[in-house]
Amino acid sequence: MLPFAGIATFLRAPHRPWDEAWEADVAFLGVPFDITVGFRPGARFAPRAVREASLRYALPPEGYYHPQRGFQLAGLRVVDAGDVDIPTLAYEVAFERITAAARAVRQRARLPLFVGGDHSVTYPLLLAFDDVPDLHVVQVDAHLDFTDERNNTRYSNSSPFRRAVEAMPNLVHITTLGLRGVRFDAEAVAAARRKGLELENRVLFRSSVKSRCASTCTTCKSGTSSKAKSRG
Amino acid sequence: MLPFAGIATFLRAPHRPWDEAWEADVAFLGVPFDITVGFRPGARFAPRAVREASLRYALPPEGYYHPQRGFQLAGLRVVDAGDVDIPTLAYEVAFERITAAARAVRQRARLPLFVGGDHSVTYPLLLAFDDVPDLHVVQVDAHLDFTDERNNTRYSNSSPFRRAVEAMPNLVHITTLGLRGVRFDAEAVAAARRKGLELENRVLFRSSVKSRCASTCTTCKSGTSSKAKSRG
Amino acid sequence: MLPFAGIATFLRAPHRPWDEAWEADVAFLGVPFDITVGFRPGARFAPRAVREASLRYALPPEGYYHPQRGFQLAGLRVVDAGDVDIPTLAYEVAFERITAAARAVRQRARLPLFVGGDHSVTYPLLLAFDDVPDLHVVQVDAHLDFTDERNNTRYSNSSPFRRAVEAMPNLVHITTLGLRGVRFDAEAVAAARRKGLELENRVLFRSSVKSRCASTCTTCKSGTSSKAKSRG
Amino acid sequence: MLPFAGIATFLRAPHRPWDEAWEADVAFLGVPFDITVGFRPGARFAPRAVREASLRYALPPEGYYHPQRGFQLAGLRVVDAGDVDIPTLAYEVAFERITAAARAVRQRARLPLFVGGDHSVTYPLLLAFDDVPDLHVVQVDAHLDFTDERNNTRYSNSSPFRRAVEAMPNLVHITTLGLRGVRFDAEAVAAARRKGLELENRVLFRSSVKSRCASTCTTCKSGTSSKAKSRG
Amino acid sequence: MLPFAGIATFLRAPHRPWDEAWEADVAFLGVPFDITVGFRPGARFAPRAVREASLRYALPPEGYYHPQRGFQLAGLRVVDAGDVDIPTLAYEVAFERITAAARAVRQRARLPLFVGGDHSVTYPLLLAFDDVPDLHVVQVDAHLDFTDERNNTRYSNSSPFRRAVEAMPNLVHITTLGLRGVRFDAEAVAAARRKGLELENRVLFRSSVKSRCASTCTTCKSGTSSKAKSRG
Amino acid sequence: MLPFAGIATFLRAPHRPWDEAWEADVAFLGVPFDITVGFRPGARFAPRAVREASLRYALPPEGYYHPQRGFQLAGLRVVDAGDVDIPTLAYEVAFERITAAARAVRQRARLPLFVGGDHSVTYPLLLAFDDVPDLHVVQVDAHLDFTDERNNTRYSNSSPFRRAVEAMPNLVHITTLGLRGVRFDAEAVAAARRKGLELENRVLFRSSVKSRCASTCTTCKSGTSSKAKSRG
Repeated sequence: MLPFAGIATFLRAPHRPWDEAWEADVAFLGVPFDITVGFRPGARFAPRAVREASLRYALPPEGYYHPQRGFQLAGLRVVDAGDVDIPTLAYEVAFERITAAARAVRQRARLPLFVGGDHSVTYPLLLAFDDVPDLHVVQVDAHLDFTDERNNTRYSNSSPFRRAVEAMPNLVHITTLGLRGVRFDAEAVAAARRKGLELENRVLFRSSVKSRCASTCTTCKSGTSSKAKSRG
Repeated sequence: MLPFAGIATFLRAPHRPWDEAWEADVAFLGVPFDITVGFRPGARFAPRAVREASLRYALPPEGYYHPQRGFQLAGLRVVDAGDVDIPTLAYEVAFERITAAARAVRQRARLPLFVGGDHSVTYPLLLAFDDVPDLHVVQVDAHLDFTDERNNTRYSNSSPFRRAVEAMPNLVHITTLGLRGVRFDAEAVAAARRKGLELENRVLFRSSVKSRCASTCTTCKSGTSSKAKSRG
Repeated sequence: MLPFAGIATFLRAPHRPWDEAWEADVAFLGVPFDITVGFRPGARFAPRAVREASLRYALPPEGYYHPQRGFQLAGLRVVDAGDVDIPTLAYEVAFERITAAARAVRQRARLPLFVGGDHSVTYPLLLAFDDVPDLHVVQVDAHLDFTDERNNTRYSNSSPFRRAVEAMPNLVHITTLGLRGVRFDAEAVAAARRKGLELENRVLFRSSVKSRCASTCTTCKSGTSSKAKSRG
Repeated sequence: MLPFAGIATFLRAPHRPWDEAWEADVAFLGVPFDITVGFRPGARFAPRAVREASLRYALPPEGYYHPQRGFQLAGLRVVDAGDVDIPTLAYEVAFERITAAARAVRQRARLPLFVGGDHSVTYPLLLAFDDVPDLHVVQVDAHLDFTDERNNTRYSNSSPFRRAVEAMPNLVHITTLGLRGVRFDAEAVAAARRKGLELENRVLFRSSVKSRCASTCTTCKSGTSSKAKSRG
Repeated sequence: MLPFAGIATFLRAPHRPWDEAWEADVAFLGVPFDITVGFRPGARFAPRAVREASLRYALPPEGYYHPQRGFQLAGLRVVDAGDVDIPTLAYEVAFERITAAARAVRQRARLPLFVGGDHSVTYPLLLAFDDVPDLHVVQVDAHLDFTDERNNTRYSNSSPFRRAVEAMPNLVHITTLGLRGVRFDAEAVAAARRKGLELENRVLFRSSVKSRCASTCTTCKSGTSSKAKSRG
Repeated sequence: MLPFAGIATFLRAPHRPWDEAWEADVAFLGVPFDITVGFRPGARFAPRAVREASLRYALPPEGYYHPQRGFQLAGLRVVDAGDVDIPTLAYEVAFERITAAARAVRQRARLPLFVGGDHSVTYPLLLAFDDVPDLHVVQVDAHLDFTDERNNTRYSNSSPFRRAVEAMPNLVHITTLGLRGVRFDAEAVAAARRKGLELENRVLFRSSVKSRCASTCTTCKSGTSSKAKSRG
């Protein structure tokens, strides 16, 4: 079926609501929530837009094929788990539903994909991983998202990692790649450093990510164990 | 669920592919075909756009309600039957699939809704009604769509009713409302009149449609019977 | 100065922040709040857009002039009072600030103009009129905005008049013009009628507004007095 | 040839530059000049846009045909005379070229069509008619375009008729239809009335135009003769 | 003449229809055909868009000049040969006309430029070169366009080189630059390799093209002769 | 205040009209003039657009902060001096006003920022610096802007540096970075070289600017003194 035709699910995967019973290798969950953004809203339409764009890359029955490498990827079970049902204004309700849906998708799929939404959804999504011992997170972002309070709220798109670190003792390390800009909140930077966040301010490109990942692995391990101790 | 969330089906109706077994009061079938248009293409995206727009009017569980008239519409079974799988270029294949899908939807739903697509799809859609004795069609269009051949093809968006009249002896009457313009094909007009088409050139508005329908009913009946006779 | 030049204030009026001391005939207050909308956000940009559009109609020094009627409007003192400072997410804070700013503008200007923003701002704006005895409001809207709760919140753009009627004993009459649609909340309609709301479902056009206003004036007076009594 | 194909000339007419020798029934001349507009520029692209849009209505070889009226229009010689070569900034040069081109097209075509461009081009276009005794002009516009000076210039889009009346003794009558708004220049209105302009302030619609034209014809004749006398 | 003015031909070259007699150094032929695309149509408007964009680079009378290199290009005879007259739906007719027009332009111009249109037009365009012994083609594309059949057609935008290789014994070598992606048709890749296609999967940038061209020349010659032999 | 709220001034700086008395470290002056452009107009809206975009980077009360470098920028006095009042068509008046406003802003602010507008405004802006002995200018542009006359005017966006060099004996050196293209006016290039302009044709990127600036400083000094001598 050509990309402009048919009901738009992620990669034309079957639609299996997240609160039903199924198993998959990859599952897509949309989180259409954008009411905390400080400038131009609209990220609520992102999950649908990603679904429509994905139809150009729908998994063919014979799988993906790469001509020079002879690469063939087939047999992958992909599922579109739909969207979290978001209320407007009642963000506490929204966050609870996001965490519940993310937990369910984690249980049912080996590789869950969560597509927001504004950055505030990172907090309720991370909460769905509160059972992982010594959780490490790699954040790719221009901003730290570690502000304590902004615009009279503690749950905006500036604060998800601050809230997560407060709520999740198992979140022991965050590596942030791609930071840039000069309008940082000094208190947030200091707080992040106290918590052991590793801040990376360079322009992000492929080779740097590679080398970064390599060096990070070593760093993380030791960093994590020392952290684990300091909290122990 | 708010209109920006969730998999976009028509009115949030369940997706039941047209080639499976189901029953409904209303069923939506998309026909994303636009390769016969003579100017700006893009109608292939129309079924998807109609689905997304329909989410603002999704049937509430308690039904539609009209405050002054006390009108309550509930219990309607609506189904989204998906889209016809359209090949590019091979229009004969496309037309066969459109007719097949339309026949299936007709059998399964009391009120089938077919959403194109350019005007050429009218022909394969009408073919799905070739078993209706004395079929009457009301066409609301600025153009007659009765041209014999245009741009070296007999199956463009200018010709669907010409082809239908040729192929379907049971298509005994067409009433065309809303005709306008001065670039008509004189041969098409003459041919339409020979076939008994009723041409209506006035600007179309609500009251005219009402009165028109009233008068048409009478006209059609007699017109139809005489036609039936003449062909009998 | 041509419309594309200069700092954009409403009608090129001087900018006098609403929390400073000034007097005017007309004052503009922007309320850039849109986080309760159920579909496409963006009304937060409306006050700025209205300011920019208004520059095409900036009050000339010699006043407005109508050639056939010999009408000349001059000497009007117009002020742009700026916008309410809106936090994201913390809607209670937003509503308190909206009410405070609206109260201030009411005191300083004979004709205050409040430009939203989504429909939820009607509630905090009406609260700024809680000292008016027997307040009558004329609402021009397709919807009733009298829903008790929607999307898990009681303060969305569907509920401002419900909240206002609950909070303001002096709000004795609302006339709603321009209602249309079939997705009304039956409970809201019933509640509105119990409260004495007058619902008007006709298409809205100029002459109807005129005659409506005429008849409304009489109706309102008697209706108001009887209401005032019933509450007395 | 379908509307999206081919070099875009007006109605697919042959391109005959206005400064060459030809004869036609209808000729199109573009005047892509917009530097006097007080707000959003871009009318310089209008002649090209009109040409592209016209391809949907290109004159068929067999002529235009109207089905109900049996109307057939054929044999019309249409020409696209190209555009005036507009310099930026040097508006005097631009105006001279516009007048010269318009004069040439008038000589070569029975029905010249001039497509601007902003309203200032009306002045150099009218100058091409300075040899018509007792010239009457019907202007369809929301504004009077009779301002003496605006934005430090006497040749903006607000002044073409003022300049024309000053420069052309043969321009004896202007009927202006469709005026609206309250930001008129009182001096311009008074000056227009002194010159005998007839101002019409009603909303413009088809039937009014018809009746207006009917009554205008009579009015104009007598008005013209009296004017001609008063100047005689 | 400024870029927004005048009839839009390629580089303001004179319009000489391809089926008339003329000679030129460079000639532009538009092929506004896009009905085989599998996703977003609209390339039918490309030739016109290229013409309009080219007006910003219209050849000055004194020729092109490069300040540091002292480069001066003058005396070039450029022609706009118009567009192929494309029917909708009847792609065989379209292809025949494309080949005929391309043959004519090849005879009349030393450097013909063909501007589509979707990728399917590559096939009828290549057919116009069926008289060139040992034809080598350099294709710059992300995809191979060597699929045997897609969407029930053998003439889509995925298949032009497959069809050309089948139809043209003189097409002895194709070098494809810029391939990327993982949704390749394995059968097409294998078939291309059997036919001697050289596939290049690297990101395309200037220096690589240069070095590629250098090495290709050598490769091609030997490759070609061996091929020529194998067919001999 | 969030970026979508409030009157849009540059970086939320206070609005101090340029013709009033004030002092600042940084001052913004808009020059909304675009009637000399040869293609697409609209730069008249640029100062307003820059103001709106700047609100995302409004100077926080505590100043700008850079996390890794510990950089803190606070205490800067920024002012929005408004726009020059531009007439249409009367470019001499526009240029006089631009020069007058730029002179005033230079006196009041240590770092004046002038935001156009099309390139022609460079000339009246440079005139505001005619009292600087041995003025050096670094121009970052794809074009030389040194044409003597274009489109029948000597003051278009192609000529500002030519006019400035003619009018300002103190303008002793111009370094032009980023030149590209092959449609240069040979006379302009020769004239620029006679006047001692340094032309730089390389693609512009960060490191090149840095090294360029470094080498330029030395070059300029000696070049200037020799120039100063030659004029002395």
